[in-house]
Amino acid sequence: MEVLRHLCHHKLRALLPRALGRACRRSHHCTPQSSPPVHTTSKPVAPTPLVSRLFQPSNLREGQEAGDMTCRSQRLMLQAGLIHLSSPGCFHYLPATLRSMEKLVRLIDEEMQAIGGQKVDMPALCGAELWNRSGRWELMGKEMFRLQDRHKVNYCLGPTHEEAVTELIASQSSLSYRQLPLLLYQVTRKFRDEQKPKFGLLRGREFYMKDMYSFDVSEEASLHTYHSVLHAYKRLLDRLGLMWVQVQADTGNIGGTLSHEFHLPADIGEDRLLMCQNCDFSANVETVEPGQTDCPQCHTGPLTESKGIEVGHTFYLGTKYSQVFNATFTNAQNKPLVAEMGCFGLGVTRILAASIEVLSNEDSIRWPRLLAPYQVCILPPKKGSKASEAIHLAEELAEHLGNRLPNLKGEVVLDDRTQLTLGKRLKDANQLGYPYVVVVGQKAREEQPVFEVVCQQSGETLFLTRDGLLDLLSGVETI
Amino acid sequence: MEVLRHLCHHKLRALLPRALGRACRRSHHCTPQSSPPVHTTSKPVAPTPLVSRLFQPSNLREGQEAGDMTCRSQRLMLQAGLIHLSSPGCFHYLPATLRSMEKLVRLIDEEMQAIGGQKVDMPALCGAELWNRSGRWELMGKEMFRLQDRHKVNYCLGPTHEEAVTELIASQSSLSYRQLPLLLYQVTRKFRDEQKPKFGLLRGREFYMKDMYSFDVSEEASLHTYHSVLHAYKRLLDRLGLMWVQVQADTGNIGGTLSHEFHLPADIGEDRLLMCQNCDFSANVETVEPGQTDCPQCHTGPLTESKGIEVGHTFYLGTKYSQVFNATFTNAQNKPLVAEMGCFGLGVTRILAASIEVLSNEDSIRWPRLLAPYQVCILPPKKGSKASEAIHLAEELAEHLGNRLPNLKGEVVLDDRTQLTLGKRLKDANQLGYPYVVVVGQKAREEQPVFEVVCQQSGETLFLTRDGLLDLLSGVETI
Repeated sequence: MEVLRHLCHHKLRALLPRALGRACRRSHHCTPQSSPPVHTTSKPVAPTPLVSRLFQPSNLREGQEAGDMTCRSQRLMLQAGLIHLSSPGCFHYLPATLRSMEKLVRLIDEEMQAIGGQKVDMPALCGAELWNRSGRWELMGKEMFRLQDRHKVNYCLGPTHEEAVTELIASQSSLSYRQLPLLLYQVTRKFRDEQKPKFGLLRGREFYMKDMYSFDVSEEASLHTYHSVLHAYKRLLDRLGLMWVQVQADTGNIGGTLSHEFHLPADIGEDRLLMCQNCDFSANVETVEPGQTDCPQCHTGPLTESKGIEVGHTFYLGTKYSQVFNATFTNAQNKPLVAEMGCFGLGVTRILAASIEVLSNEDSIRWPRLLAPYQVCILPPKKGSKASEAIHLAEELAEHLGNRLPNLKGEVVLDDRTQLTLGKRLKDANQLGYPYVVVVGQKAREEQPVFEVVCQQSGETLFLTRDGLLDLLSGVETI
Repeated sequence: MEVLRHLCHHKLRALLPRALGRACRRSHHCTPQSSPPVHTTSKPVAPTPLVSRLFQPSNLREGQEAGDMTCRSQRLMLQAGLIHLSSPGCFHYLPATLRSMEKLVRLIDEEMQAIGGQKVDMPALCGAELWNRSGRWELMGKEMFRLQDRHKVNYCLGPTHEEAVTELIASQSSLSYRQLPLLLYQVTRKFRDEQKPKFGLLRGREFYMKDMYSFDVSEEASLHTYHSVLHAYKRLLDRLGLMWVQVQADTGNIGGTLSHEFHLPADIGEDRLLMCQNCDFSANVETVEPGQTDCPQCHTGPLTESKGIEVGHTFYLGTKYSQVFNATFTNAQNKPLVAEMGCFGLGVTRILAASIEVLSNEDSIRWPRLLAPYQVCILPPKKGSKASEAIHLAEELAEHLGNRLPNLKGEVVLDDRTQLTLGKRLKDANQLGYPYVVVVGQKAREEQPVFEVVCQQSGETLFLTRDGLLDLLSGVETI
């Protein structure tokens, strides 16, 4: 190394292997006194995605059967090549799913950062010692995956991170009231050793969750933070265009004194929800006296029951964890005080599957518009058909849209499988649920070209000029 | 649920709890025939990040001591509050690290997708059965974390995914030659039960890795793919402005017949590299006959030794795995053939730490410019100082830069700790390595305001008008 550094300093590049010499010219070490080096290495250009090359459904029909424990979203996601079973409750997320999930994560980032959330990433391996201190090593029972390292030290695979984050805060002895509220969140893989994994991504053993933890100076401040997170969750679900319901919930093995769940109403939902028809009372049935039929809030309305898929859960924790780990801050008088906490979960992979569950029909996936893996699919005519001279127009259009409309960068795919009929490819596009399908046919070759646009979310079909198409698509919101 | 659906259809919203009623108005289910619903929920606006609120160094001085097994990057990252030790070899990645890592992942995505890579995400839990088939369940020994689920089935925590991805491809019986080359990659957490974790993120037990797997129709095609990945790796490291070297490498327990490593030369590197001074030969010492001192390629040049930190590793695998799992495609004659494979790793968290290792000086972090967590830090004058009336100018400037320059959206922080001297805050900014530090002082209040700009990468200090500042900063590349 000393030799290398010496060589660099004396710019004796001829003596260096080529690769290293080339890199040296860009190294900050080699040009410490000059003006900032300009990165001349150009950004690569990603080509238009071609349906024939996508690792997805229409190419890979023979998928797995969903088996007994199934539901609509699992069946559709398997058929469409969005997921592939690896072991019970563990799935490969295939490319289209990953695109959708990354959009959801960006949406979550926007909403959490807007209320002051700072993103972190905590290890999956959590030492038993921490969980023993909180008393949850025993409490979690068989739901927790446990293992030993080569030195026989016990760990679990974190199903949640109250212990880890509280210990992190406790280790920072100079935390001041000026820094509170502090909201730390992560979007990471969580592990639960479910007895019977089922419903695909809805109840798996390995899944992505967004978990946020709040630290505040007082109960009042903590409840204020709690409500700002509820508000952010509502806004997030609204932006996804989902029908949702917020109910009072049980605090389970997380603990605390106040808790809410967010549900998407669905027949396959595992939670039973009670709602008052007269006031805004709504609750998980777990929180209501058995047999109660009238509303405990207004005492006049009857309670209606429905089922829901839980996609979010919030907890006001008080000092349950901060007391145990001595997570303190110093107040204005420089006195240490125990922080008040909250924790807030959103099921990331579960929101994806639950959305597909509630928005799709029997054989066609429908996404929350913002989360569709690709917004637009362009269909050229069949090779050898009368309209086949329009094939190159479709290719041009795909490139043009991606370049011209910043919101559609990377969002336009071309179904280049022109050996197949248009009908066959339209059916595939319908099954996959691209929000917009643009058919480039005979009419695209006329002097004033016209395109057929199927808006799959509304079911409408429009016939648009190129300007009309650009106008429609320039309004598509993407994230 | 049926009740709910009924209510929705008849728009009897008065009977529904408020939250659900509100959501219903946006639901696609409720308005299936109308034109696409417009999402009116506005995007939240993230405020300018304030240094006083960031969960990072200057606020949290009492960090952990790095201990014995330390190196510059570990020490600097601990001091600066970038990482926090959770258990041996497992770190919390704190907010600034996460911002940097997300930038690196975007860069990796750009480069991998430019050569046709499709992103997937495979489970961390990998069944022993697959690893037994490849013979690696035994081979991996104590380096692999192993566990049993509640049904006593054996799993490992994936240190790499050759088995998993090959089984995934093998399950797709209709894979056609038309879809090859197929390149699947993921950026996920990997696990290795290191005997002695050390050097912070450089040798941990839990870390992020980008692993890509290629499937090709022939050896020739596979080698072509192999070289396109080498090219992408070089471009990626060049875009980071790093000094790097590519060497021939041993295939270890991954297998295959051709392998290269990418190293950042550094004294603490654990690999010994040999380079010829006459030709472009360069190799990991593991691949060279013991005692060899002259170049095996040109036979004339002496070999110079240096040390390197491995940041990337590529393998041409042939059919080692595809044969075992019967991962086939159908050729033009519809005959099944075994796919040729390659695999390609990049250490994500290792690149972060290794870059800091080689670019920083003893007490100040320097980032690859593209990966700095924030590009610009604005320093207002001290409260109560002569220039204190410029404090609001600094606040305005921070907001103005973020709004005016699209490349700097979210990249400008304001060091609002105006109770501290400018000198103290300049020192912190130097330690954290913001590429640009803008001091707003007395001169900012003149008729023609002038700002002092410290370009921390080059060490230059510039005095610029507002237009000059905008001009300089509009050229900052971000990702």
